Amino acid sequence: MISVGIVGGTGYTGVELLRLLVTHPKVDLKMVTSRSEAGKLVADTYPNLRGFTEVYFTEPDVKTLSTCDLVFFATPNGTAMKMVPELLEQGVRVIDLAADFRLRDAAEWQQWYGMPHACEDVLAEAVYGLPEINRDAVRTAKVVANPGCYPTAVGLGFLPLIENGLIEDQHLVADAKSGVSGAGRGANVAALLCEASESFKPYAVEGHRHLPEIRQTLCGISGHSVGLTFVPHLVPMIRGIEATLYAVLKKTDVDLQALYEERYKNEPFVDVLPKGTMPETRSVRGANVCRISVFQPQGGDTVVVSSVIDNLVKGAAGQAIQNMNIMFELEETAGLNRPALMP
Amino acid sequence: MISVGIVGGTGYTGVELLRLLVTHPKVDLKMVTSRSEAGKLVADTYPNLRGFTEVYFTEPDVKTLSTCDLVFFATPNGTAMKMVPELLEQGVRVIDLAADFRLRDAAEWQQWYGMPHACEDVLAEAVYGLPEINRDAVRTAKVVANPGCYPTAVGLGFLPLIENGLIEDQHLVADAKSGVSGAGRGANVAALLCEASESFKPYAVEGHRHLPEIRQTLCGISGHSVGLTFVPHLVPMIRGIEATLYAVLKKTDVDLQALYEERYKNEPFVDVLPKGTMPETRSVRGANVCRISVFQPQGGDTVVVSSVIDNLVKGAAGQAIQNMNIMFELEETAGLNRPALMP
Amino acid sequence: MISVGIVGGTGYTGVELLRLLVTHPKVDLKMVTSRSEAGKLVADTYPNLRGFTEVYFTEPDVKTLSTCDLVFFATPNGTAMKMVPELLEQGVRVIDLAADFRLRDAAEWQQWYGMPHACEDVLAEAVYGLPEINRDAVRTAKVVANPGCYPTAVGLGFLPLIENGLIEDQHLVADAKSGVSGAGRGANVAALLCEASESFKPYAVEGHRHLPEIRQTLCGISGHSVGLTFVPHLVPMIRGIEATLYAVLKKTDVDLQALYEERYKNEPFVDVLPKGTMPETRSVRGANVCRISVFQPQGGDTVVVSSVIDNLVKGAAGQAIQNMNIMFELEETAGLNRPALMP
Amino acid sequence: MISVGIVGGTGYTGVELLRLLVTHPKVDLKMVTSRSEAGKLVADTYPNLRGFTEVYFTEPDVKTLSTCDLVFFATPNGTAMKMVPELLEQGVRVIDLAADFRLRDAAEWQQWYGMPHACEDVLAEAVYGLPEINRDAVRTAKVVANPGCYPTAVGLGFLPLIENGLIEDQHLVADAKSGVSGAGRGANVAALLCEASESFKPYAVEGHRHLPEIRQTLCGISGHSVGLTFVPHLVPMIRGIEATLYAVLKKTDVDLQALYEERYKNEPFVDVLPKGTMPETRSVRGANVCRISVFQPQGGDTVVVSSVIDNLVKGAAGQAIQNMNIMFELEETAGLNRPALMP
Repeated sequence: MISVGIVGGTGYTGVELLRLLVTHPKVDLKMVTSRSEAGKLVADTYPNLRGFTEVYFTEPDVKTLSTCDLVFFATPNGTAMKMVPELLEQGVRVIDLAADFRLRDAAEWQQWYGMPHACEDVLAEAVYGLPEINRDAVRTAKVVANPGCYPTAVGLGFLPLIENGLIEDQHLVADAKSGVSGAGRGANVAALLCEASESFKPYAVEGHRHLPEIRQTLCGISGHSVGLTFVPHLVPMIRGIEATLYAVLKKTDVDLQALYEERYKNEPFVDVLPKGTMPETRSVRGANVCRISVFQPQGGDTVVVSSVIDNLVKGAAGQAIQNMNIMFELEETAGLNRPALMP
Repeated sequence: MISVGIVGGTGYTGVELLRLLVTHPKVDLKMVTSRSEAGKLVADTYPNLRGFTEVYFTEPDVKTLSTCDLVFFATPNGTAMKMVPELLEQGVRVIDLAADFRLRDAAEWQQWYGMPHACEDVLAEAVYGLPEINRDAVRTAKVVANPGCYPTAVGLGFLPLIENGLIEDQHLVADAKSGVSGAGRGANVAALLCEASESFKPYAVEGHRHLPEIRQTLCGISGHSVGLTFVPHLVPMIRGIEATLYAVLKKTDVDLQALYEERYKNEPFVDVLPKGTMPETRSVRGANVCRISVFQPQGGDTVVVSSVIDNLVKGAAGQAIQNMNIMFELEETAGLNRPALMP
Repeated sequence: MISVGIVGGTGYTGVELLRLLVTHPKVDLKMVTSRSEAGKLVADTYPNLRGFTEVYFTEPDVKTLSTCDLVFFATPNGTAMKMVPELLEQGVRVIDLAADFRLRDAAEWQQWYGMPHACEDVLAEAVYGLPEINRDAVRTAKVVANPGCYPTAVGLGFLPLIENGLIEDQHLVADAKSGVSGAGRGANVAALLCEASESFKPYAVEGHRHLPEIRQTLCGISGHSVGLTFVPHLVPMIRGIEATLYAVLKKTDVDLQALYEERYKNEPFVDVLPKGTMPETRSVRGANVCRISVFQPQGGDTVVVSSVIDNLVKGAAGQAIQNMNIMFELEETAGLNRPALMP
Repeated sequence: MISVGIVGGTGYTGVELLRLLVTHPKVDLKMVTSRSEAGKLVADTYPNLRGFTEVYFTEPDVKTLSTCDLVFFATPNGTAMKMVPELLEQGVRVIDLAADFRLRDAAEWQQWYGMPHACEDVLAEAVYGLPEINRDAVRTAKVVANPGCYPTAVGLGFLPLIENGLIEDQHLVADAKSGVSGAGRGANVAALLCEASESFKPYAVEGHRHLPEIRQTLCGISGHSVGLTFVPHLVPMIRGIEATLYAVLKKTDVDLQALYEERYKNEPFVDVLPKGTMPETRSVRGANVCRISVFQPQGGDTVVVSSVIDNLVKGAAGQAIQNMNIMFELEETAGLNRPALMP
């Protein structure tokens, strides 16, 4: 059994970690911290967990956390980087679900997150935890930067095309749409039901923090700089991300369906849909899977990819557990092998 | 392993049975029938099942179904009663998720369902599968009538009060609210998103088919006739039922909280909430649990009970599997022990 | 033209007042105050008003407000009572959409609202603005207490039964359901889309502030004390209230349909639906109308009434404008005669 | 007063026409036809219209319709073209809200709509009713082809860029998203609340009927063939379309904000938002307006435009009434000058 702690267990990624971990066959959930809820029963905040855990929220404390094999951070950006160095010293491994270790370049990190990075040396050795491209590095990582939700959906969608040099990559377009849980559980007017339901809108068109993260992933694959326009939108639903990707093909006679199926045939959590099938976010609700379809409308020179994930699962907590399974040499699907809830 | 067949696997209770059965540790899902979809891969209709089952829909056929230990009927009312006698002859046990075997009185059944009953003898021996009152009978039943969704929520809510003779029972009120999945997956205008979302309404105020079923349950508990007004409402959401129950107390000094906690303390799937907590349907989404709170507003002589279930789980497929577990002497919680999906 | 000011124009009742007033043929909207948004263009906060008003939010100031004929308060409870006396001195008439002047008994007001009342003398002369029972008094009122949303739906629903002494009135039940806009536009976790959508729950079962207000209305009609259990619920939608009312009939042979039609035949904003029709909240979305149906299930001794309104219109801003029209001897329907938005 | 008839009044565009026409100051609504509902009161099908019209649905009949000055067709594709020639002979003018007269090329029409066109001569003289580009032609038109919802949002969004030759136009991308009312009021499983809510998906990626219509509009503006990839998506809400448009700029130093403001400054129903503002579909709910923002992320060479409309209003019934107003020389905004319903 792996003994596990969670720092920041009250947000949506925190409770999703809890939902998945309480039935994980190899995990002993030892502690969940929350400054605001310390002393309260976790299951009182999240009644869905009644009967599954008797854990109480506690104050975050490095000493106590050091008794764990693994600590997940489900905290706001900028928190993990302050505690991680000390935990590493104690031999604890870490998966950060926030953005602290996602960008390799500390200067770029500072530019997008508005504060200096607190531990550039750790940043340098952190592994970007997208198993479909970094599985081997994850295995031995001390710190895994769990990818952002949009970067997961967009990255997996573009991957086969870029790996194979099939597209013009200076004017890529990623039009992405997310459910409201991506905004977190903080009280803010824009995420109220009366503001966000029965409406649809783009946001952060001028520049979203996931843009440099996606670019880093795509450049990592291509080996050179790529040009990307990324526009996120808010969908009136709780969970789910859909990304529609557009690129101009260098040649129009490649069997794209076969390419995608081949690339992902051994991936337990990427599902290439049969030709002509439209991915729906509900088909992945609560499940750690990315479903992808690839299209070449009217046989022309534009390729369209649609990629869906549950932003809280394959886009956050589920992928974190997938990374944990890899790091601790468990079955990669342990605790994650459940169908989506549909309808 | 129990070998299992499902007749009528394309509706919402059918797919929910599939979702729960494909990961049940003791079930071998042998066949799923559907006249309309025969020949098609189940996972093509329900992409959430991709990777979990390779079963194809087949034509319903008693001979093939007879090779199963247990057959679930997730069919429209009036279908099961035509096939069940033959299956029983072959030694197959049956759980009917429709209404064919729910009312003990064949004349009353005919009155509410608009057709004569096809096998009154089977009706006579069928067991009403609400484990919290009929567990022992379920164990040896050949045919289990799986309760309706409203009757489950209302029955479990009133049970402790009526068992103990604490309320005036000639003017009970059950104001119940259901998500739209209760209307099934048939194409009908009233269940369109554009008709049912952003709106709330009562329906069938003059008389709903679940009224005689609830009455039968309550009378069975009290030992005499009870008076009940039951008004169902449609909620703009997919899953969930909440029933708010009202009755006048015979005496006002009973500790109702303790009464409910005591009554359900050994029930794996009934959860009495801490005093003052409001049940929310989302706390049971996808889970086989009924959460209940009891209130006595301002200490007066009216008791208010709020009871929530997922209509597709504890109100249908989950309860059916709970009954299966009891019938086949498995752990009662086998395959059902998962937290609700929240948010 | 009536010159009008609004104090507290940033909440949902405020913007709804604005939406209706900017096209009202007899209103000159002079000022809208908001401490938090002062200096900002109203149409920047509410883009639906772009092109309809050039007004800026200003600081609330009695002197400036005194230049208006009428001031609406769309403020939190406890604000209006501090400013109203001074406005009255200046000859300004007032409609308060909050609760400050709704309960006649200052002690009861203090008990439910947790603060002493600031102007009991004004309270004594304020008129409860439910036109269907108080039209004449509203005409000459200096201060109108605009009714709460639940009290409007419940009051209009019970009115004909109580006026005619047809029901046992010591155990009335009002099971009411509201869209989330009833919770206002404040940032609070419980009203987030991810908390409130895809779920249904009761709240404040032990006692809601609208309980004494409804009781006061019902007692005013009956001339004696009545017993009422009132349970509000939260519906995953933006607008709308449905109240289902239950009572035991003293005699079962009254033509209830005719009674309701007769009572409301001259009311421009109460619509008794044809027998057997179910009211839907969407049929009143954005419209100043209360639609009502009355049922006597199976011809028994229980009467069931279903009453729907848009909580922001007939339950708040629309009713306030109806009161304004009456106070200023305009056509009662002026500015309000628009069909609901459906679908 | 213009005397008006509607053919096919039971769908969502039909009821929206009714909602807007019953309060139009210059319209006498004489008849509404529906084969399926003939003999029924319109307000029984659409209770929001109770009190606003006493019209009954009648059988469609050219002779009776010929007594109108104007007939709207809110029928399925292929219906209007069979009745229009006869109406024209009688001197009746026509606005078709379906697609029968939208494509100038009859062969292309047949290819996309799967049937030969029934009156190519009428097609030849029909005017495409996008007032922002065709106002003068609409004024004298006998038959107006009311634009599709997507083509309206996409066309108005691209218009200023293409008119001024500012973009590379061989790889335009239009990523569009629509509420479910776009699918109409027919009973189909995919539009059920339980299928379409809490989910997001693309559809018709291989080719949607609005593609040739959009292409025709864009080519008409540019004067040459353009290359467009158009991907529609389904949003879990009732009303609203958002289109996000992507193109590569020929030069990056044009003031795009000023360009858009200038182009639309005299248009009553196109609202260019202040720089940096994100359009939301709810800001146009129920209103006949298109709100547009233009962005140049990070000052690069890609322009992003976001355009929102209510698909039932500026995307259908409202635009039809705008066209009617132009055709009959009324104030262009008559009957349409109402703020959107928000929240």
